[in-house]
Amino acid sequence: MELNQAISRLMELQKKLYAYHYAESSIYLDSVTVAPRETGAGRSVALGVLAGERQKILTAPENGELLAELAEHRQELTFEQNRMVEELKRDFDQISRIPADEYIAYAMLVNDAEAVWHKAKEQDDFEMFCPWLEKLAAANLKLAGYYDASKAPYDALLNEYERGVDMAYLDRFFKTIRDRLVPLIHAIGEKPQVDDSFLHKHYPAEAQRRFSDYLMEVLKLDRGHAGIGETEHPFTLEFYNGDVRITTHYKEDNVADSMYSVIHEGGHARYELGIRDDLQYTRLTGGVSMGVHESQSRFYENLIGRSRPFIQAIFPKMQAFFPDQLAGVTAEQMYLAVNKVTPSLIRTEADELTYSLHVMVRYEIEKQLFDGSLAVKDIPAEWKRLYKEYLGVDVPDDRRGCLQDSHWAGGSFGYFPSYALGSAYGAQMLDRMTKEVDVWGPVSKGDLTPVNRWLGEKIHQYGSLLTPAQVIENACGQFDPVYYTDYLTAKFSEIYHL
Amino acid sequence: MELNQAISRLMELQKKLYAYHYAESSIYLDSVTVAPRETGAGRSVALGVLAGERQKILTAPENGELLAELAEHRQELTFEQNRMVEELKRDFDQISRIPADEYIAYAMLVNDAEAVWHKAKEQDDFEMFCPWLEKLAAANLKLAGYYDASKAPYDALLNEYERGVDMAYLDRFFKTIRDRLVPLIHAIGEKPQVDDSFLHKHYPAEAQRRFSDYLMEVLKLDRGHAGIGETEHPFTLEFYNGDVRITTHYKEDNVADSMYSVIHEGGHARYELGIRDDLQYTRLTGGVSMGVHESQSRFYENLIGRSRPFIQAIFPKMQAFFPDQLAGVTAEQMYLAVNKVTPSLIRTEADELTYSLHVMVRYEIEKQLFDGSLAVKDIPAEWKRLYKEYLGVDVPDDRRGCLQDSHWAGGSFGYFPSYALGSAYGAQMLDRMTKEVDVWGPVSKGDLTPVNRWLGEKIHQYGSLLTPAQVIENACGQFDPVYYTDYLTAKFSEIYHL
Repeated sequence: MELNQAISRLMELQKKLYAYHYAESSIYLDSVTVAPRETGAGRSVALGVLAGERQKILTAPENGELLAELAEHRQELTFEQNRMVEELKRDFDQISRIPADEYIAYAMLVNDAEAVWHKAKEQDDFEMFCPWLEKLAAANLKLAGYYDASKAPYDALLNEYERGVDMAYLDRFFKTIRDRLVPLIHAIGEKPQVDDSFLHKHYPAEAQRRFSDYLMEVLKLDRGHAGIGETEHPFTLEFYNGDVRITTHYKEDNVADSMYSVIHEGGHARYELGIRDDLQYTRLTGGVSMGVHESQSRFYENLIGRSRPFIQAIFPKMQAFFPDQLAGVTAEQMYLAVNKVTPSLIRTEADELTYSLHVMVRYEIEKQLFDGSLAVKDIPAEWKRLYKEYLGVDVPDDRRGCLQDSHWAGGSFGYFPSYALGSAYGAQMLDRMTKEVDVWGPVSKGDLTPVNRWLGEKIHQYGSLLTPAQVIENACGQFDPVYYTDYLTAKFSEIYHL
Repeated sequence: MELNQAISRLMELQKKLYAYHYAESSIYLDSVTVAPRETGAGRSVALGVLAGERQKILTAPENGELLAELAEHRQELTFEQNRMVEELKRDFDQISRIPADEYIAYAMLVNDAEAVWHKAKEQDDFEMFCPWLEKLAAANLKLAGYYDASKAPYDALLNEYERGVDMAYLDRFFKTIRDRLVPLIHAIGEKPQVDDSFLHKHYPAEAQRRFSDYLMEVLKLDRGHAGIGETEHPFTLEFYNGDVRITTHYKEDNVADSMYSVIHEGGHARYELGIRDDLQYTRLTGGVSMGVHESQSRFYENLIGRSRPFIQAIFPKMQAFFPDQLAGVTAEQMYLAVNKVTPSLIRTEADELTYSLHVMVRYEIEKQLFDGSLAVKDIPAEWKRLYKEYLGVDVPDDRRGCLQDSHWAGGSFGYFPSYALGSAYGAQMLDRMTKEVDVWGPVSKGDLTPVNRWLGEKIHQYGSLLTPAQVIENACGQFDPVYYTDYLTAKFSEIYHL
């Protein structure tokens, strides 16, 4: 085959895979936003077929030959083309190892399980979800073997969310975090608490919707390309760099909840919208890993969104949206309120400091689940035990316990550590960013241009062209979690007068 | 091949086609409901690929062999299986004749054109849409040749929406309508007009949303399987008999607008939800034709929804939703108001009597478009001329003229006559229904059970198992438009005291 022809077949293959990704994303988006409740049966059939077709398209023997041939011409290919070949070869090998019937059944299982989880959570009924969670865990145990049989199953899964990360790495990472943050959290517990009661007045959803529009403006999210919807569990979904959707959830007794969901998901959205045009419709578009993705979302949410300059900049506008609720409140009081440290039950509502402890609970459970030392049915008890140990809180029910997150229901085991990693990546990025450009001057005026530009240039544009480690290193040097713990220590010592 | 094996391959093929239909529907639904405006480029790429894949799957040579083999075993197949083979063979032949690149390009063209049409309509700019409409018409001219080269192009297109219907048939049909209704409309024009001003008070969207929920209850649409969304142009979309979505549009100065959209689309939804389970995931699910589909939607909208017993039944509830707006109004006044006859500009807002004239305008234009006697650029002038001639109204702009409907932008030429045919089918069904069961007693109590049951048994359950003509004939004898004109004559003579 002519090299040009091989390259054009490579591009065609990627465009096809893009179309299936698009279709499955669209179906998923519908299912969690507007679809009526009892419509899973038909969706499951469709998703099963599409997964099967997608697998067949990727793993066609001629693609194996194509990729091998292209790999032989490495010298003649561009850097981008080589990366496409590399990543597609990896996908080809992994997905080829999964039997077609298992691949299809898994797509259907995830769709069905999510519907059950929704009900189970609503009704606080772990028993209802337990058999499904067992199926999901068992399926992921098998998937881990297909991904990389040389690794421990949980290591193989972790590696799918953050290439190169494993339990040994995370154990060290979380030890650093724990050693440095737990004493800080205890010290804060001894100090007088800040008042955040005004965040919990009545904030009508309609006014919050308008406030979301404003926040998206502040983030410079172009509404022609970025949509906002409402779901129980906020998320971001991308179709390509011209179409990203975020969702949020309005709690009328907590204005900070949706506010920080919008900023968090907005960070994900900025990443996806900022990926280079020439990577579209290829394997190299999309954020490179969940860790790097969360570094962006949590960068906007916490490092910017919960910073004093940002709150000072947006507070007058916020007061205009909620004049009664925020009458007499100062920007400084708002800054303190959105940074109030309290060990709590719900990860997505956790403060910036105790957040990683929530992640650690899930990490410890997943580890045990995949080394066989914890049965699915025993998760609720272990969850309660770990929340008591790490956060000192009593978990009153499973709805606010192990049923709170959607990840497992969606078949994602090994995702959670990304949140902590991402937070830590972000702190290191901020350290470098503030050395290179004036961040806080513009942010204190509500102008995120330098932030957007720096992240766009250093992170966003590359999509999956570079590996996670390369992206981080290029942006801010070799990863070291101490940037993160230092940042948190400084910030919260000041807030709580330690 | 074993017959059993052939049958199971037949079922597999249909399930695959269902999944593609599902995916494309989901993408379409998103595009017209929540997708941000400037996201067409990525969608177009995805839809192009999916259309290409779907064509490839259907027209694979082994399917030709499979269908031929099954056709040889006709005697051993069930009625249902024979119908599947018959319809799939027809699809196979038609779609095989379309070159792959044209098929893909057409899917992309429709997606792109709809976005342009939206803007053009908004900005009242026919020039903007004209080149796209030219492309769409040219593509449909070619498609007509692929569908059935032995027919005149417009006949071939009409046949896709209503099997067996052509221009000769429609000319006769519309002549009957025109001959009998135009004098009636003129006579009404001489009589005192009814007052419908209270329909145009301020009706907040939020209250209308709750009213929609109530109407869906009246129609006995199970919200676990039937969703309602909002779009500029109401429509119904089905995934399978367990998942149907309708949309509506709230005009705060016209309560009847969304009310009748919901009832109309609700009729479509009842049809789709009522199709037999054993036809799901096969070629035989889905309403059999646009004419029969419109017979159901317009049955609920007009024959039931604009009947005196129905209005009497729901009016007290309606007054409870809108106490200020409807203070002092009687059920009888409401009945007269929703049946006010006025030649007007907008088809979807037309009264039951003049509605067919709106359809005729479009039919005449489509006829000329496809026999080459009318150029696309001349549509606005011809539209104005025909509205003046048929309805006696002056069309002030293209937004309220030839840009008002979404059909052409969606590539549908030959669809419009279905609305008039469907209305006429419905009148004949009602005639038979009232002879077989007590319709008005229950309806006057707000109970649509006998109506739902009769239509469910006679029409809905069959999906596409029977042909349109068979469905009509089974339900109410051979089609005769005089039932329709008689019904309208009786109804409006009474209302306007002729």
